[in-house]
Amino acid sequence: MTLLQTIPASSRVRPRALATFERIAVVGATGLVGSEALSILYARGVEPGRVIAAASERSAGGEIRYGEGSHRLVQATRERLRRVDLALLCASAEVSRDLAPALISAGATVVDNSSAFRLDPSTPLVIPEVNGESLRGAPPLVANPNCSTILLLMVLEPLRRAFGVEVIEVTTYQAVSGAGAAAVEELIRQAKDFAASRPLRSSVFAEPALFNVFSHDSAVDVHTGLNGEEAKIIAEARKIWVDRSLPISPTCVRVPTLRAHAQAVRVRLNRPATEAEVRLALRTSAGLDTVDDRAANRFPTPARASGLDTVQVGRIRSDPAMGCGPEERCKAFQLFICGDQLRKGAALNAVQIAEALDVHRRLGS
Amino acid sequence: MTLLQTIPASSRVRPRALATFERIAVVGATGLVGSEALSILYARGVEPGRVIAAASERSAGGEIRYGEGSHRLVQATRERLRRVDLALLCASAEVSRDLAPALISAGATVVDNSSAFRLDPSTPLVIPEVNGESLRGAPPLVANPNCSTILLLMVLEPLRRAFGVEVIEVTTYQAVSGAGAAAVEELIRQAKDFAASRPLRSSVFAEPALFNVFSHDSAVDVHTGLNGEEAKIIAEARKIWVDRSLPISPTCVRVPTLRAHAQAVRVRLNRPATEAEVRLALRTSAGLDTVDDRAANRFPTPARASGLDTVQVGRIRSDPAMGCGPEERCKAFQLFICGDQLRKGAALNAVQIAEALDVHRRLGS
Repeated sequence: MTLLQTIPASSRVRPRALATFERIAVVGATGLVGSEALSILYARGVEPGRVIAAASERSAGGEIRYGEGSHRLVQATRERLRRVDLALLCASAEVSRDLAPALISAGATVVDNSSAFRLDPSTPLVIPEVNGESLRGAPPLVANPNCSTILLLMVLEPLRRAFGVEVIEVTTYQAVSGAGAAAVEELIRQAKDFAASRPLRSSVFAEPALFNVFSHDSAVDVHTGLNGEEAKIIAEARKIWVDRSLPISPTCVRVPTLRAHAQAVRVRLNRPATEAEVRLALRTSAGLDTVDDRAANRFPTPARASGLDTVQVGRIRSDPAMGCGPEERCKAFQLFICGDQLRKGAALNAVQIAEALDVHRRLGS
Repeated sequence: MTLLQTIPASSRVRPRALATFERIAVVGATGLVGSEALSILYARGVEPGRVIAAASERSAGGEIRYGEGSHRLVQATRERLRRVDLALLCASAEVSRDLAPALISAGATVVDNSSAFRLDPSTPLVIPEVNGESLRGAPPLVANPNCSTILLLMVLEPLRRAFGVEVIEVTTYQAVSGAGAAAVEELIRQAKDFAASRPLRSSVFAEPALFNVFSHDSAVDVHTGLNGEEAKIIAEARKIWVDRSLPISPTCVRVPTLRAHAQAVRVRLNRPATEAEVRLALRTSAGLDTVDDRAANRFPTPARASGLDTVQVGRIRSDPAMGCGPEERCKAFQLFICGDQLRKGAALNAVQIAEALDVHRRLGS
């Protein structure tokens, strides 16, 4: 049973956005995820007077846009955030480890975008459409999963519910914005330098991203050969699905896109399904859009997915290695996914967690 | 036994390059693959007087570089190519279907880069390092495989020989140059337009390649969901390995790189192997370079592979979905491959086929 099904229809009309959280702080407000969170809060109708935009000492005192107006940035210290009811932490794991316990002690609810608490057994790691039931009782600290994990499980969850999932193989095409605003600036500068016949310089990444593709920039475990991003996908998917031995083969790669990650996915199901059944499960799932026009060769792309709240899925086909005909039941399917990793992959998912917590607080559930 | 092992060491020193082919034509000389073929012939020492550069009616009469000098382009007609001993066809399948039979009737040997004869049962489809034995008897027509097939099998062949291959899964990151010179110009123009804040225009591809990723531009079979590139990989790999039911799951995707394709590969072996055994098999195989520095996060990239004759392989690791520890024998491995699809993926492989044919002709083998 999903969260929405547990709420009487009459209570779905809210007096105002995130009503049980009077004062809402966005920490890391100048970053890509933080500024996306501010724009989502504004779009949700959170009044300017309720919002605190917090940033590092370097940025504090400056201004940041909030809808039509702007906010003065406060420094993200325990003292300045003492009276906050909800904090969306969109900074580093280090900042989260420092601030979260103090904010919670002072009575705040924290939704943390960093990796600091994701694998902590007592902290729920939540994609509302997937395991929103973990938000019952409105826990004071909730971790937001890694962007790649969110996009992947958003698409695989309806298949898990309908057919069970046995093995996941995922190969990524990740935008540079996953590495922060400086990485976006670096790629844009490289395009301009190329156009002006100047040499390409790199400092965020070890090599130019323009006209190149490289293995994900997170550190590689010298024993397993997995990089940090791949290890996150494995550990987080297993935690969210409460399946400690779920077999996952990830390969994480950066490509020269600015925004929205893509993933080529092969999934082996517990129970064979027809392509039509797989399509139906995906098409009827909240938060997904099917973009799958074979005749027009039109499928999900990062360009098309950028700025959208839904995750796009296409190239839905039975796995040719299984030898199933197009109409036959098959145990393995292939998919191509694109999603805006700054929205559903980060800020939007965090706000959706906060909204679900708000509902549980109002209903006392 | 590989081809080189069958040739006495003394005969490996040749009087001159491709000696048994006096007059050598490159058809499609102005294209990306054709001009690469010319530069490889020059580097091999083929004298300018032996080379005929042929092109379409539109380009005929113009000049093309050959080493320090230049050649006048002749029109690629049966009549103009009547006295050729070796023709490297680097144009469309249509041109190949028109020219190849006539050239062969006139006594020429044809190495065809197009898809025209690849699946013809009587035409060998050859990667010299993989199935060079198909060149025994110096057949008059040999087909050069698709670039993605060549790069993939170059890396998997040593694993097949050592451990057997049960299933191949390959996800590609393909450079725009695979779609021809106009696609390269389009991506470069888009970078310049972006730098000048002009809108991005596309005509070769259906959407901008700059800062984007899209499913391969070849037509998609509306029943199977496979695109043309994926279907080629499946059919060609099965033919080259003489294994009609080899299970292969390909996903082919274009990325905004100019040159050199990348592939994320997962291979299931017949016999489990240790990571060290897999590395050894790859490191000792001709035509491969291992680039696999976990501590420095340095792996194959298109930028690094461009212009090289070898295929780069790295990120060699046992598949985490199999649950094998780093030192244990494992049935599945993951790899990341990059190779210059215009050289080993096309022109170089074609010249290597011609060189092997030349050896067989001289030895009468």
